[in-house]
Amino acid sequence: MALVLQSATFLHQYLGSLLHSLPNKSGTALKLGVLSSAQINAASIIHPIETHPDVILYSIASRDASTAAKAAKQYHFAKSSGSYQELLDDPEVDIVFISTPNGLHYEWASKAIQAGKHVLCEKPFTSNASEARALIEQAEKKGVVIEEAFHWQFHPAAHAFRQILESGHHGKILRTEAVMTASPGVPKGDIRWQYDLAGGSAMDMTYALSFTRYALRAQRPQAVHSVTARKSGSDPRVDEAMYSYLTFADPSGHEVHSRIYTDMARKWVGGVVPRLWELPSIEVETEKSIIFFYNAMMPHLYHYIAVTDKTTGKTQYHRQYSGGPLWGNVMTSRGKGGNSHWSTYRWQLEAFVDAVRGKTPAYWVSGEESIWQMECIDMMYQAAGLPVRGGDPEKR
Amino acid sequence: MALVLQSATFLHQYLGSLLHSLPNKSGTALKLGVLSSAQINAASIIHPIETHPDVILYSIASRDASTAAKAAKQYHFAKSSGSYQELLDDPEVDIVFISTPNGLHYEWASKAIQAGKHVLCEKPFTSNASEARALIEQAEKKGVVIEEAFHWQFHPAAHAFRQILESGHHGKILRTEAVMTASPGVPKGDIRWQYDLAGGSAMDMTYALSFTRYALRAQRPQAVHSVTARKSGSDPRVDEAMYSYLTFADPSGHEVHSRIYTDMARKWVGGVVPRLWELPSIEVETEKSIIFFYNAMMPHLYHYIAVTDKTTGKTQYHRQYSGGPLWGNVMTSRGKGGNSHWSTYRWQLEAFVDAVRGKTPAYWVSGEESIWQMECIDMMYQAAGLPVRGGDPEKR
Repeated sequence: MALVLQSATFLHQYLGSLLHSLPNKSGTALKLGVLSSAQINAASIIHPIETHPDVILYSIASRDASTAAKAAKQYHFAKSSGSYQELLDDPEVDIVFISTPNGLHYEWASKAIQAGKHVLCEKPFTSNASEARALIEQAEKKGVVIEEAFHWQFHPAAHAFRQILESGHHGKILRTEAVMTASPGVPKGDIRWQYDLAGGSAMDMTYALSFTRYALRAQRPQAVHSVTARKSGSDPRVDEAMYSYLTFADPSGHEVHSRIYTDMARKWVGGVVPRLWELPSIEVETEKSIIFFYNAMMPHLYHYIAVTDKTTGKTQYHRQYSGGPLWGNVMTSRGKGGNSHWSTYRWQLEAFVDAVRGKTPAYWVSGEESIWQMECIDMMYQAAGLPVRGGDPEKR
Repeated sequence: MALVLQSATFLHQYLGSLLHSLPNKSGTALKLGVLSSAQINAASIIHPIETHPDVILYSIASRDASTAAKAAKQYHFAKSSGSYQELLDDPEVDIVFISTPNGLHYEWASKAIQAGKHVLCEKPFTSNASEARALIEQAEKKGVVIEEAFHWQFHPAAHAFRQILESGHHGKILRTEAVMTASPGVPKGDIRWQYDLAGGSAMDMTYALSFTRYALRAQRPQAVHSVTARKSGSDPRVDEAMYSYLTFADPSGHEVHSRIYTDMARKWVGGVVPRLWELPSIEVETEKSIIFFYNAMMPHLYHYIAVTDKTTGKTQYHRQYSGGPLWGNVMTSRGKGGNSHWSTYRWQLEAFVDAVRGKTPAYWVSGEESIWQMECIDMMYQAAGLPVRGGDPEKR
């Protein structure tokens, strides 16, 4: 499903750039380098940059020089390279976007930091929490900006969702249920099936945990009741699916019971119908209401937040494609409140560039936040009896 | 939906009695009296008795003598009466079945006990827990059998369900979700909408709580996190729907989080399609599996117990229409293991007659059990801010 969503985002952005005038770049625009030639780059960084006046596609690196050159030509990067390190050694590069396989995030984010670059790193941030802690420490020492690319959290809909949860109208939160599945499943041979590259459903589909922790403003779980993995047939260290049942505390300290279900090979209905409608989502039950955020991962394509009032039985639908509680009063690079054709990645870029420019971004995924997220994932793997991904950077 | 199920049960039993030979009654068969001319009588007691050799339809009472006479004629009762008390005063009556509105259960069960009758009383047992405690005490003093008619618990499928839960194959129970809804809704003017008759969804749809407590062998909840009622428009003391979120302890003391949802006016899909498929059910998630018992209330009509193994993703379906872990080795009044065309009510009658005859019944809903059930319901009403039904029998 993620693949389908990404393709749809690509199309959405492509049409957006055809239909909307592109800005002139400022003479001092930040220069971005991309580490890897992953398919996701087009949606997650290249198209967003096209509509941002203060950052340009400067350099792209791949382990294979011709692949990099081809990508550079296709997307109008100024330079390309067959070596990640060569890109990092270029003093012109201001920002590095890391879209390597998960297992390489730490190594290359760390090297980018050492090279004095600001880093936007694909999710999951690292292979485990100790890598995350090390990266955050390194970035602080070096005085560079680093952020895990939890793009969905930047979208106006995520903040409409949070505003509803925190409006005081719905009472305290009782339980949450977050789901992210792939149906059709993640293709065989994909890097997400590879343990050595820090694959697994809880890693790749870290969104479901992110929806949960975001809704609750939670750190680590208070209790891990049960985590059960469905192991990959080809590598029992890789979770094809993961069922987690955790207790978190909400900001007032009330306990909340959270189910998190990720599945890279979700069974089709009757074995014949892929569950195309099962988009990443979260249901939050409060004392008074049941609040369901559909397609929380890519709300720019389509989403709704359905709020069912238990005391009346009525359901109200909310949508937020621009402005809203977070962005409504923000003067973005393209006007007040942003644009409704912006993807989650574009909203994220807006904040990231602001942070690099020393301005207070409208929203931020802090280093602490990414450490907590990885700590949760480590706890889930431990509870499931699977090995925590990656190694300990201090032991390298 | 309950109405549809009851009609289907009636048809199921009617066809059953056409297709299967009826037994000759024993010369010393127990004589049953029915208090009320409620529609449910046909399914819940009259047809079951037709296939039991040791109990006969002896007497039926209604507040209106002609209604009683008509029912007696239709169903071949020996006698009828326009007075409940007159039926109770008849020394020939051995067993009384009480199907009055909920709010009258206590009064007439109590009077039946005083008259020395054994009592099978429709669910919910009473209006509240203090009435339940009083009845159980009275029956013990008088030395008569009394039981709440939780017929579904007697069906072989309920015990196949319990056997699966307690097989040791699925790990400990994490959470349960029990649902009972009416769509089309309970008709306007029905006694279930009347506060003075102890109406309300948590009362009438006490099954959903029963599924939950049965699955967990639970007594009272450890914690009532939240209970929210959707109040009836015509009487705010009556819960059209009730959403409960409770913590119970399983028999090993592990905490289990339970959602219980009852709704007497369930919204149709898109306002146009009644949710006919939403039969009373319970989902139990354990560490290893998700176990779903569909149509737990009337499994004789149709049911399945779907067991999805989280570690393999495979689902196995179980069905049990006769025999099984509870009844397999029991010599019933109609042979070993009972009959697959028996309704839940017929299985219940089998056990009830055994108890009256001084034999150990295959299964029993104890007085303690009914007190706990009513204590839970009282707690739910209190947590929802609605009045506990009925009065305190000690203050009468």
